[in-house]
Amino acid sequence: MGSVSEAPREITVGRYLFERIKQLGVKSVFGVPGDYELVLLDMAPEAGLTWRGSPNELNASYAADGYSRVNGYAAFVSTFGPGEISAYCGVSGQYTEYVPAVHIVGYPPSRAMKDHLIMHHSLGDGQFGMYHEMTKNITVATTVLDSPVNAAAEIDRVLNAMIHYSRPVYIGVAVDVGPQKISSAGLQTPLVTSPPPNDAKLQSAVVTRIVDAFRKVEKAVVIVDGCAIRNKVIRETEALIKAANVPYFTTFMSKGFTESLPNFGGVYGGAGSVAGVQEAIESADLVLWVGSYSSDFNTGEFSERVRPEVIIDFQRHFVQIGSRKYALSMREALCAVTKALEASSPKAMPTAVTWDANSWDHPEKPEQLTQDYLWPALGRYFQSGDLIIAETGTSSYGIPMANLKDKSITMYNQTVYGSIGFATGAAVGSFVAGREAGTMKRGILITGEGSLQLTVQAFSDLLRFELGATIFIINNDGYTVERLIHGEKAEYNKVPIWDYSKLGDMFGPLEVSKGKFKHYSARTSDDLEAILADKQFAETNPANGVTQVVEVFLGVLDAPVTITLITKAIEEFNRVK
Amino acid sequence: MGSVSEAPREITVGRYLFERIKQLGVKSVFGVPGDYELVLLDMAPEAGLTWRGSPNELNASYAADGYSRVNGYAAFVSTFGPGEISAYCGVSGQYTEYVPAVHIVGYPPSRAMKDHLIMHHSLGDGQFGMYHEMTKNITVATTVLDSPVNAAAEIDRVLNAMIHYSRPVYIGVAVDVGPQKISSAGLQTPLVTSPPPNDAKLQSAVVTRIVDAFRKVEKAVVIVDGCAIRNKVIRETEALIKAANVPYFTTFMSKGFTESLPNFGGVYGGAGSVAGVQEAIESADLVLWVGSYSSDFNTGEFSERVRPEVIIDFQRHFVQIGSRKYALSMREALCAVTKALEASSPKAMPTAVTWDANSWDHPEKPEQLTQDYLWPALGRYFQSGDLIIAETGTSSYGIPMANLKDKSITMYNQTVYGSIGFATGAAVGSFVAGREAGTMKRGILITGEGSLQLTVQAFSDLLRFELGATIFIINNDGYTVERLIHGEKAEYNKVPIWDYSKLGDMFGPLEVSKGKFKHYSARTSDDLEAILADKQFAETNPANGVTQVVEVFLGVLDAPVTITLITKAIEEFNRVK
Repeated sequence: MGSVSEAPREITVGRYLFERIKQLGVKSVFGVPGDYELVLLDMAPEAGLTWRGSPNELNASYAADGYSRVNGYAAFVSTFGPGEISAYCGVSGQYTEYVPAVHIVGYPPSRAMKDHLIMHHSLGDGQFGMYHEMTKNITVATTVLDSPVNAAAEIDRVLNAMIHYSRPVYIGVAVDVGPQKISSAGLQTPLVTSPPPNDAKLQSAVVTRIVDAFRKVEKAVVIVDGCAIRNKVIRETEALIKAANVPYFTTFMSKGFTESLPNFGGVYGGAGSVAGVQEAIESADLVLWVGSYSSDFNTGEFSERVRPEVIIDFQRHFVQIGSRKYALSMREALCAVTKALEASSPKAMPTAVTWDANSWDHPEKPEQLTQDYLWPALGRYFQSGDLIIAETGTSSYGIPMANLKDKSITMYNQTVYGSIGFATGAAVGSFVAGREAGTMKRGILITGEGSLQLTVQAFSDLLRFELGATIFIINNDGYTVERLIHGEKAEYNKVPIWDYSKLGDMFGPLEVSKGKFKHYSARTSDDLEAILADKQFAETNPANGVTQVVEVFLGVLDAPVTITLITKAIEEFNRVK
Repeated sequence: MGSVSEAPREITVGRYLFERIKQLGVKSVFGVPGDYELVLLDMAPEAGLTWRGSPNELNASYAADGYSRVNGYAAFVSTFGPGEISAYCGVSGQYTEYVPAVHIVGYPPSRAMKDHLIMHHSLGDGQFGMYHEMTKNITVATTVLDSPVNAAAEIDRVLNAMIHYSRPVYIGVAVDVGPQKISSAGLQTPLVTSPPPNDAKLQSAVVTRIVDAFRKVEKAVVIVDGCAIRNKVIRETEALIKAANVPYFTTFMSKGFTESLPNFGGVYGGAGSVAGVQEAIESADLVLWVGSYSSDFNTGEFSERVRPEVIIDFQRHFVQIGSRKYALSMREALCAVTKALEASSPKAMPTAVTWDANSWDHPEKPEQLTQDYLWPALGRYFQSGDLIIAETGTSSYGIPMANLKDKSITMYNQTVYGSIGFATGAAVGSFVAGREAGTMKRGILITGEGSLQLTVQAFSDLLRFELGATIFIINNDGYTVERLIHGEKAEYNKVPIWDYSKLGDMFGPLEVSKGKFKHYSARTSDDLEAILADKQFAETNPANGVTQVVEVFLGVLDAPVTITLITKAIEEFNRVK
């Protein structure tokens, strides 16, 4: 938490807002300027925040998403109407994936709203509440400040909701309200960044029940799922796994969680798992599931078969045993269970992983590059300290095939919401945050050419912010995932042909003139291995500021084994029943 | 209206929908594929429609907007969730500017929705109605087809609302419902493309009152405003002007309406008008205002001063005299007034335009190019048959300075909603429609570099659809309009530096290899004149398929005189009162 003592006793509404955001550890604010917010933008640097303009609002919202995943919180600014609406897709993704961020929206003058004037960016009917109504569907709290009265309290209420639910919120500020003066006294009361302590009696009862279960069953496992990552209980979950000393698994959504503990069992995604994993989990009579998220793409299209009665699920605000939910915070409950397991002597259970948890890791080497060869090869290329953003679709299905043993990396994707184009925008924000925090050795983006096209503008930010990113573009001449689902040869699954070697010339002429953009092509397995083995390539990082693209050419219908397994289930599922 | 006789007696829900769209004269459908809509997309070509994939959904919605403005109606398809939300900005613009278009959304399987499963693209809570709720704020009718029962009736209801209100609508189709069979009998009943006839007695009374007013007053004028264009009463308005034989004016929103009739008085935008125009209008004691739209940007930030009691306003569904609205359709009412004026002998009134309606048209020629020189020069370059799309901001404020006398052109902008990035996407759709209709000799896009960056993906469509477009990019190193409003030197008003000469290499490598992309730079007035005078440049059109960009370099704070006048009013307006 930053210091607030330097703020004067009377400050503007906008300054108050940005001081609060700074208190949450935010250093960069993303967004696109617009005339209803220009005055407000002057106040971000007053509070010590850095403005990071985005080429469009969708990219700004994705950048905020990526920034928040790494930094903990994020803020982005857009104008009323077209600006904010263009960011709603990013906000919906934040909501779905528990990414806390505040969307600040510059509103028309309060007088114009009261007089119902037909302002630009409105729908032309003198109304101003419709976007606010829309955004209520995709946020956990909202306010529109059309007066300085209560502005501080409203800001605090909304930001506290963002923290509590770990989800996005919306703060509209009328252009004439932002510069009005209010007391800064509220800044001395910290925002509520921790939940209240769990009820001791309830927690004790639940912990006892869990430890008792451990004594009774024959075979227990731990699954680390997406909401463990999103709720940032990574260290707590590692401690639990050590104390429980049973096989543990990750999922498509939690891929990136350490695979270095002794009893790592593999990635679980129902029918999309390696042989052995499914059997090991589905035959267990106790499953400690940390942060389950049972979405179609995270469960092999609902092909998981774990009996509900054996599951103990830890969620942000409750622990669920069977069908009963207990109001306990996840972090404290996990620590309590770990402590109790350490203190007790749970019954000895099978701990050994008798199957090959990474059986995808050693494919034969084909001449023409294949997906099944690519992803394990990337796994070998990854190093500790990497911050990796993988796109929805082929990339998020391929990444589980990368073996992360003995590597401490950070990896994000958008498994549930699944908006293509997300990764490129999110990479900008993630890499900015990773560099600010000093925790990122290399920033790596993995996306497809179809996905890249949606938000290609982000490239100019990757370049001008000198993030030293490495970008793998999976070029398979169209929407391969869609082709596998339906329309193998259909016109609509083609995407325009672009020349990705020109990304530097097009989007970063200044950087390029300094020789800071590189493009590589990989068509064969040998091409790929040569690039990955190149020392200069492997050492690229924010410090040298080179942006490098590897265009990986793959067969039009080639897909990772995971996706082949699951897309069949998807088309089946989409059919009339 | 297309023939429907070839449709079989039983057809799929999707085919029914696309047959209805074809009946409205739509030939191309825009959109982005997604797995919930792939099956549906198979049915568009079955109905004889051409699929025009867009690189992202925002561009698809803008393309549909541009297509509808030229063609009359448009359709575009996206997937549930991220796809549709990314298009809402385009839908809101359609709503605000009375552009009829149908947004078709591929929904998850009906069974998954009934079972509240956590599907990708949802918010992860088993709910499916939230996007539908959001879209109700920005459309005039919606439906989500989760069963074939009533599907035909629902499609007809929603499309009829689109036609009636000339605004966007929303049709969701569950992925399993699209292929289900229904009767095609409904297709024999045409959609309702004309309003019912006006009440004869009411119309007669209103017409009499208008003709009487003409007899009584000393000085009448006609203003042709945005809703005359949007409601496509162009010929009717021309006839009215001839019959009334008084000075007539256009506005920022209606710029493009013929200036070739004898008594063209200039462009009216309050304080943003040439000398003489404001006085001529504001001293009139009768103003026939065809399709007024009193938004800030269309009225010189509300600096128009026309007394309400002298206005007779013709709108789509009513005629307003003073404060009273009469339920009469615009088109029929205009014709009736014209007929009555022709039959009567209205009192002789001043008809001569005694001021210089195009005083902006003859600036001195500066060495370094200026905005005030640029826009009249473009006016000289324009030819009859041009289809011109001008971006919000500098371009839509500059275009009024172009003299269109003796030229029959078509011109669109987005004056009221004012979403930057609109023009580039809309140009794709407009030019496709203009080429299909055979009415477009040249397609011209005028935008700024900051605006272009939001939707630059559209370039790949301009290239691959071989639209033969000419694109003027006003490069003034940032958001000049914003700078003039607030933050002249602020960091947030800078935009990334791109190399626009690489647009062809980047987005259209195949086309470029055929030498079909050209880039010109204009820094001086002579540069510009030389380019515009070049025969090959001037003759570029869809037939030769060359895409050419003119990058026009202008001073960072240089702006057309119109904008300098109005932005002062805007900052003043945005200030605390």
